This record gives sequence, structure tokens and C-alpha cells, in this order.
Amino acid sequence: MFKLVDDNCMDDNMKELAEQVDVIFTATPQGLCSSLVDEDILSKVKIIDLSADFRIKDVAVYEQWYKLTHKAPGLIEEAVYGLPEINREKVREARLIANPGCFPTCSFLSVYPLVKAGLIQPDTLIIDAKSGTSGAGRGAKVDSLYCEVNENIKAYGVASHRHTPEIEEQLGYAAGRPVTISFTPHLVPMNRGILVTAYASLTREVTYEEVKAAYDVCYENEYFVRVLERDVAPQTRWVEGSNFADVNFKIDPRTRRIVMMGAIDNMVKGAAGQAVQNMNLLFGLPEQTGLRQIPMFP
Amino acid sequence: MFKLVDDNCMDDNMKELAEQVDVIFTATPQGLCSSLVDEDILSKVKIIDLSADFRIKDVAVYEQWYKLTHKAPGLIEEAVYGLPEINREKVREARLIANPGCFPTCSFLSVYPLVKAGLIQPDTLIIDAKSGTSGAGRGAKVDSLYCEVNENIKAYGVASHRHTPEIEEQLGYAAGRPVTISFTPHLVPMNRGILVTAYASLTREVTYEEVKAAYDVCYENEYFVRVLERDVAPQTRWVEGSNFADVNFKIDPRTRRIVMMGAIDNMVKGAAGQAVQNMNLLFGLPEQTGLRQIPMFP
Amino acid sequence: MFKLVDDNCMDDNMKELAEQVDVIFTATPQGLCSSLVDEDILSKVKIIDLSADFRIKDVAVYEQWYKLTHKAPGLIEEAVYGLPEINREKVREARLIANPGCFPTCSFLSVYPLVKAGLIQPDTLIIDAKSGTSGAGRGAKVDSLYCEVNENIKAYGVASHRHTPEIEEQLGYAAGRPVTISFTPHLVPMNRGILVTAYASLTREVTYEEVKAAYDVCYENEYFVRVLERDVAPQTRWVEGSNFADVNFKIDPRTRRIVMMGAIDNMVKGAAGQAVQNMNLLFGLPEQTGLRQIPMFP
Amino acid sequence: MFKLVDDNCMDDNMKELAEQVDVIFTATPQGLCSSLVDEDILSKVKIIDLSADFRIKDVAVYEQWYKLTHKAPGLIEEAVYGLPEINREKVREARLIANPGCFPTCSFLSVYPLVKAGLIQPDTLIIDAKSGTSGAGRGAKVDSLYCEVNENIKAYGVASHRHTPEIEEQLGYAAGRPVTISFTPHLVPMNRGILVTAYASLTREVTYEEVKAAYDVCYENEYFVRVLERDVAPQTRWVEGSNFADVNFKIDPRTRRIVMMGAIDNMVKGAAGQAVQNMNLLFGLPEQTGLRQIPMFP
Repeated sequence: MFKLVDDNCMDDNMKELAEQVDVIFTATPQGLCSSLVDEDILSKVKIIDLSADFRIKDVAVYEQWYKLTHKAPGLIEEAVYGLPEINREKVREARLIANPGCFPTCSFLSVYPLVKAGLIQPDTLIIDAKSGTSGAGRGAKVDSLYCEVNENIKAYGVASHRHTPEIEEQLGYAAGRPVTISFTPHLVPMNRGILVTAYASLTREVTYEEVKAAYDVCYENEYFVRVLERDVAPQTRWVEGSNFADVNFKIDPRTRRIVMMGAIDNMVKGAAGQAVQNMNLLFGLPEQTGLRQIPMFP
Repeated sequence: MFKLVDDNCMDDNMKELAEQVDVIFTATPQGLCSSLVDEDILSKVKIIDLSADFRIKDVAVYEQWYKLTHKAPGLIEEAVYGLPEINREKVREARLIANPGCFPTCSFLSVYPLVKAGLIQPDTLIIDAKSGTSGAGRGAKVDSLYCEVNENIKAYGVASHRHTPEIEEQLGYAAGRPVTISFTPHLVPMNRGILVTAYASLTREVTYEEVKAAYDVCYENEYFVRVLERDVAPQTRWVEGSNFADVNFKIDPRTRRIVMMGAIDNMVKGAAGQAVQNMNLLFGLPEQTGLRQIPMFP
Repeated sequence: MFKLVDDNCMDDNMKELAEQVDVIFTATPQGLCSSLVDEDILSKVKIIDLSADFRIKDVAVYEQWYKLTHKAPGLIEEAVYGLPEINREKVREARLIANPGCFPTCSFLSVYPLVKAGLIQPDTLIIDAKSGTSGAGRGAKVDSLYCEVNENIKAYGVASHRHTPEIEEQLGYAAGRPVTISFTPHLVPMNRGILVTAYASLTREVTYEEVKAAYDVCYENEYFVRVLERDVAPQTRWVEGSNFADVNFKIDPRTRRIVMMGAIDNMVKGAAGQAVQNMNLLFGLPEQTGLRQIPMFP
Repeated sequence: MFKLVDDNCMDDNMKELAEQVDVIFTATPQGLCSSLVDEDILSKVKIIDLSADFRIKDVAVYEQWYKLTHKAPGLIEEAVYGLPEINREKVREARLIANPGCFPTCSFLSVYPLVKAGLIQPDTLIIDAKSGTSGAGRGAKVDSLYCEVNENIKAYGVASHRHTPEIEEQLGYAAGRPVTISFTPHLVPMNRGILVTAYASLTREVTYEEVKAAYDVCYENEYFVRVLERDVAPQTRWVEGSNFADVNFKIDPRTRRIVMMGAIDNMVKGAAGQAVQNMNLLFGLPEQTGLRQIPMFP
């Protein structure tokens, strides 16, 4: 930010900040935001929380997966899950936004239309996700060193990643009943980007056109979700640096399954960009304000 | 090879070569080896074919997936699928070896013990594979340029990759009946390595120890297959430059599925290394001859 | 550009285009622009040429280094070398802009203040440059394949790279006499970015403050050139995606030399961004129009 | 090393080890080896020290660049600088080997023949070096994180890197008088490899053949140094994983300079491989024992 922004980092006293600003973005360790926010603060300022504290409605599920005691369970109900493509109207009226996780954003946008349309059996969903290394944060850990990540790929958090219940909860709303899925993230030697490859059994024989229509119903008015052309697989570099989510699908008649794919930039649509999108909704600004950056290629 | 090997590339006249050498490795475009090899040649020399020509027993399946007319269907039956961990005795006696594909090698070694033990339902198998870029060959194609591959991940050949029937055929032998699976490869920004993440529904409740025992039965005497320790996920860099296949698994009681994982170097166990392993068997050499290179790290 | 720009690529008939538009950017093979442009076209439209055709005033030097016969030598004199930090006023009045090469832009901005201030001996200049792979273009060449570039670094065009005379000519204007330098580019496994490390003998003993003042005189009013803080070495990722050039220096009293360093994004300040900066000057627009993109990190 | 080596790391008690083994390799922080080794130990065991403690004969120079007090100055004189291509006979007789630094090995092998032949002016030498990230070690530092190194290049230790006096001392022996040079390392986004690009003024007009002969005199019997063919620039991937040093040069008549280039794998010829080469000499083993690994490509 050299010569671009002169502001200094201030002390993060939330009570003081609440008096001075319109909105606070919290990108804090799990459990911290919920220990700081209260009714008094929410009466003065909008909060957009990028941690997981308010994403999961069932406090027991949160506490089990995050191994934490929730500090503000009374505020969970009010919090709105900030995926504008699903909850746009609720976001507009919210005081407290739970900004979605990077994997859940990409996973959900990739499979949501077919869950909603009843074209897939939700419990057969297997989501195999691949993430760039910025998803691991900037902490000085051996596992994040260049020579550990470069020329390498591995799965991590197998059958235990914390984003699983968040994806399941949102899919449950779309399906109208609880959903249990398999979710496996992988670490890929690149800075940015998430690719999701999701597999599910079809509920019946479908044509390309039917499935395409199910996606279009959901996304044809969504600027930030692009349904790609037939047989074009999403690539993370096509969304790098932008707030776009690219999605597509491929029917596999041999197995009666469908492969759903999606790509986002985990730092933009998967985090800060979506937070800005939510802010725009909160304050009645055009939804694309500050988010018109086109993908960077190469 | 500067100052390492003085040999010149010779004209590839297979008939002449058959008179002079003991074994010919063919790494030729699909369809070429089968158009060159015949009974006369096989009576003089062993052939290890790294193309797909002799991997699939059902010529109709080969012709459908490869869009080629097979030129030597009469030799298919005799050819031995050169996965030493499965077909060691047959390889020893063979004249014509079909060296396995890179994805099939990694996929099959990862899931074979559980198919054989009947612990998973084969038709629920979903194999999500990730490959380094050397798998695309050295042809000058835009899709293989540095700036296209770097900082990017994408699926390709979705629901249509040619390695699918090869995996299915081998799994069918293990299961004792035909198997249909989902297989999706992805292109990863690294030179070498294949990682397979495979998902299947368990046929019954299992413990870690039971599943571990199923792997050990198959691999405890296999030098080149390493079953990793509990909860350790395979990483491609742990096998880079070596002929090892690292495999492991994770039971997911929530979904009653199991996640099977495997990693190989696609250039070694996935191609040239396995070809040498087969040659060693063909000529009664110690199986590790020329293959004792340990993985390179970092 | 999917769903971002609807325009179709049109036939590149320069005569027709000249009737319809205000400015034409030509990013054409060497020799093509100079074969198309003429007085008639220049009377109707501004041309910003991203090739080398009009960068070098001495047509014999151009023809020798580019092995081409120049097709429009009569227009060379009029063409303005489009480095706004040096030629801002001339650019405003120009009809034909020779947009600088990527290496010359970074090299020149890094060393110019000291040549101009007479603090270094120009003929001792050695410029060691490192470039990302996008500098090689998008042609399908084996040398640009992922597996050739990744995990590798090499010099190329040693003592013969075509950007050498372009740098020398511009340095000659700053020095007031002809200058001969050593210039060596290297190919680095990254998509974007150029780093220049330049070495020269000091003409006299100098202090940090003196040298810093020489840089500040040149750049303190330049938005796109950032002189970094003492002892901070430029990094290409600090300018990636932006039109900034970051420069700095280090005095080496042991050798009586100075090391000058600079970093740009070769696709922005090294090509398209600088072209837009020139367009802004040509049409009296604010110089930063369309160029406010901040560097992308990580 | 899973399933490859069963040995456990033992306590590093050098006195005890000296009783049990023939040779100790110390790859310890600067200053540690010299605080542990003494006459008693050296009377029982050979020491090959991969730190800088015994590389520099002038203890004052060592202490100034390393900001340490040397703990065993009495042993410095005896220590042999373990560059076999220069000191082969001395190495054979040594008790204490100072294994050369990675940059000095590559730098010295690249320029040594011309310094020795008197074809370049040593004080005009400028060495611009580029290193993969394994050179930074495996410590958990933010600067070594994947997202900091990837898609980036920067200089570091400008005019102050500790390998400078080591290079200068060895060049001084070749030149027959003290030499002062410029040395700048750069961090490159790759795991392994060092490339050196060195510039110097020629002492007189030379032909390609004369310079080639100067290299050949030094290296024609050296297995591990390969002088490449005319106009072929060394690439780090051509030596990756091997103990080779590839060198070449390019005469630049325009500037009366010569560009010398060299490439090594910093982990092999730049560290462990060279240590093994020294061990082989110490014990009268064939010099290539354990070092016949060919470069890995890609």
C-alpha cells in the first residue's frame, strides 16, 4: 500500500469504532468477534464478520466443529448469512452479516440450482475442492513455506474440515431438509483461487437444456455468477482478482451422475469482495460498487 | 543428457530392432504400436508398450473411447496389463506388456484393496484425480504454456477421459463383475505428480484396523507401495522422482463413505519407472533394479 | 472477457479504422505497423505502436538489430518515444507514439536519475534483467511450455537482445553522448513482472542523501514511479497488476559502485498500461485514467 | 524417508560420535561447529563442515561479515576449502573440510578459468546470482511463505551478502592478488537451483576458441563440470537433482566484456553433493560414488 493509502492501523477498540464509523469488517480469529459484539454495538454500527462465528445457526454444531464455546449465542439468530445471491433481501435489512467461508461460497453456488430444482439427491453430494495457498493465511508455518507447497498437492482436513457444516446448513435450506455431504479440500501450488468439483446422483434422466435452465433461473440476473458455455470447464484464472463465480456442469449418463464445477477467487468472492458486496446491499449502494475489477490474465 | 549418454537416436524400424535387442519400449501415439507389432516381432523381442493399445481387452471399448480402429486385435488377448502389484506372475511370462496409464495406476492402487475385500460398493466410486503438467506431453500447445497453467486449476475430459474404461476394467477383475465409475482429472500447476482422491460408500460399518488390514494384505510385501500412517494424507512431493505409490484412507462415519487417497510420480510409477519394473520381471532381474532413486525433496 | 465485453474483433483494416476512431493501438509483429501507417492515416487518427518500429531514431541500428528493412523511415523522426516520465510534453503533441519496450521502461526508469545527475559512468552500466514468462507472448512454442519454464531460470539473448539499442539510445539523450551498455535478460518462472538490477561505477564518492535527492528530483511528482524507502529492494509482486514502477538503489563503498533496482509489471507499465498513459496525455485526460488499479497481493 | 531409512536421529554429541564414526558432516548454524571441534576430535574423525566457520582464512574478515567471534581460530589454517575441482589434492589429506557455500561454488566455477588465465580484470567482476528458495532453509519465516515467494523476484543482501568475502578470497588465490567484486543474490520462485551471470572486462581482444580453451584446460577432466556448447546458456533444470555444474560464456565485443554463466543445484553441488564428493576424496573412494544421479527433467 506504499504511497497508496496513508491511513495508519488504529487500535481495534470496537466500542469506540462503533461511534465513529458506519460499518466494521471483522476478519478475526474464530471466537473473537462473538466475544466483542453486543446489542449496544449493533445499535450503532453494521458488522460484517468474516470469521465463522455467526455462520451456523445451530450453536451446538458450531461448538463441536470449532471446539469453542460461543460467546454471543443470543445474536446468532439475527445474523444473516451474507450470500447475496441467496439472501439479498435479508442482507439489506441486517445489522450483523456472517460473511460466508470461501469453500462454502464456491461449493454452494456450484450446486445450489440443482438442489433447489430437485434434480440431484442431496445426500449423494461429494464436493472435492482445491484451493490456492492464500487460503492458509499469512502465518509463519512450515506447512505454508514455498518449498513445502510448490510442486505438490495434497488433501487436508479429510472428513473433518470446518466448512462442511456450513455448506450442509445452506444446502439444507435449499433442499428443505437436512443434508449430509462429503467435503475434501486440497492445497494447490498457486496463490489464489478455489475450484470445486462436485458429484451427485441425478433424481431422474435430464437433458442439458433442463439443467441449464435450472442454473439460469437462479443466475441469469446475477452479475457475479457466470454460467459458462456448454462443455467449458471453469478455471480459477478466469476469475482471479475479480468477484466472479464461474459455474458449469456436465451430465454423465453412464453413471447417472452430474458433475458440477465452480471457480472463485478465494480472496474476493470468497472473502473481501463478498464482504464489500454485502456492504453495498446494507447501504443501498449499487451492488457492483468497488467490485468492477475484471479478472487478471495471465 | 549432455555428456551423460553418447547414444544417438536411431531410426525406429521395429523389425530391425527386433533382431538386435532384447526388449523394445514403445511410447508412441495411440494406435501406432498396434500397427507395427506382429507375431514375427514378438517371437524375437519383448515389447513393453506405454501407449493404450493393449490395455483394454474389449476391442469395442477401446475403439469407442479412442476413436480408432485397432490394428492388431489378435494380440490383445495375449497382452498382459503390466501392473506388477496385481499381475506379477503373468508379467514374468509375457511377450507383450501393456504398461498401465498414469491415472489408472494411481487410481487402482488406491482403491484396489477395498474393492477386493468387498468393503466398498464399486459402483459408488468417484475418483477425482489431479495431475502435474508433464502428463500433457511436450507438444507445443497453447493450453500447456506456462502462463496458461501457472496460477490455475481446471478439470478436463469431464465424464469422458480415456483412462476411465481402463480403470473400470481392472476394477471389474477385482470386484468380480463389471464396474462403472466417475473419473475426473484436473490439471495442476506443477511439473510432476498425480494425486487421486477417491470416494465410495462402505458396504458395512468398519474400523480403522479392518481397513488397514485390507491394505496391508495387498501391499505389505510390495516395496513400491507405501501405506502411510494413520491420518497422514499422501503428498505428491513425497514420491517425486521415485517409483513409489503412497496410499492411505480416511473413514467418514457421518456419510458412511470412505475417502481413499494415492500419490505417484506420473513419469515414474505412472510411466517409465513402471515400464522398467516390468522389464525387470520379464528378465528375472531384481524388481528394484534401476529404480532405487529416493524421492527428491524439496 | 466472458460476459464483460460484447465487442467482436474486427478486421484490422487501418485505413477504415482511421475514419472511425480517435486512436489505434498496434501490438503487431515487428515491421508490420511501419508497413501500414502513412501520412494519410496519421492525419486522421493517433497511433500508439507497441512494436519496436518507431522506437529507434537511427534506422540503420533498427535494421541491424531487427534484421528488417524499415518500411516507413520518413516517419521515424516524427514519432515520440512514449515514456511519459521523460517525454510528457512531446507525447501531448504527438501523432505517432512509439510505446517503449518492457525492459527499456524498467531499465531506464531505474538508472535515468543517476545518468542525468552525472553520478555514474554510463559506459560501466551493466543491466541484469529478469522477466516473467508473459514477456514471451502467447505463441505455442516448446520453450514457453509450463514444464520448460517451471523450476528453471536461464539467461537468453546474451549480448544480443534487441532491447539493448533502445536502452542505449535513451540513456544517450540523458548522458548527452552515446552510451554502450551490457544488457542480459533472464526468464523467470512467474507470469508477470520485470526486475532490473543495474550496476555502475560512481563518478565520485556519494552519500545516500545525494543519490536519493537525484531520484527525487526526477520522480517526486511522478505518480507512477515510487522511490522506495532506504534499503528496501523492489519486488515484482509489489507492482503486479498496476502501472507502478518501483525503484531504489544501494551504494557499495567497497567497489565504488552503485546497484540500481527497479520493478514493473511488464504487461502494464511495460506495455498496455503505459500505452493507456500515453493515450491519456494525447487526449488531455487525467494521466491516471483507467490506471488506478492497485497492485494485487498475493 | 518413510520406509527408506530406519535410523533415528541421535543426540549430536560430537565427542561420542568421534569415537564411533569415520566422518561427521556438520550442517549447523554459523559459529556452532567451530565451538565444538577441537584437536582431540580431529585426531579421531574427519569433519566436513557445511557452515561458513572454516571457509575464510582471515578471521577478521569472518568476524566482520558474520558478526561472530570465531571460537577456534587455531584450526582455520588447517581447514581445506572443499572445492575438489581446485583443491583436490589438499582435500585428500585433510582432517577438516570447509564445504563451500552454494553461491561461491557456482560463482567460482563460472569465472575461475578466466581469472586464472588472466583474460579478465578481476576487479571489474560483477556477479548477479539467482537462487531457488531452498537456499533460505526450512525455518518458518514469513519471507519464505509460498504466497510471498511465488510470482515474485527480488534482490536481497545487496552489497552485503556473506558469501562475498568467500568468493573474493578464492578468486584472490586464482588471481594472485586480492580481488574485490560486486555480488548480488536474488530470490527466485523455484525450489532448487542457482544461476550465476557474471560480467567482467576482458584484458585484451579474445576469440571464442581462446576462451573455450581456457575453460577446457580447467575442466576437461572434471566429471562434474560441464562446459556447454557454443551459445548454449546454462539452465538450472539441466542440473536439478545432480552434482553437475554447467558453465558457459559469451564474448561481447561491443562492450569488451565477457558474460560468464553457471548453474548448479544448490542442494547438491552447492551443499550435500559436494560434501559427499569431498568425503569420497578423503577416503580414497571413486569421486562419483553416491553422486551418479542424473538431472531430473522436467
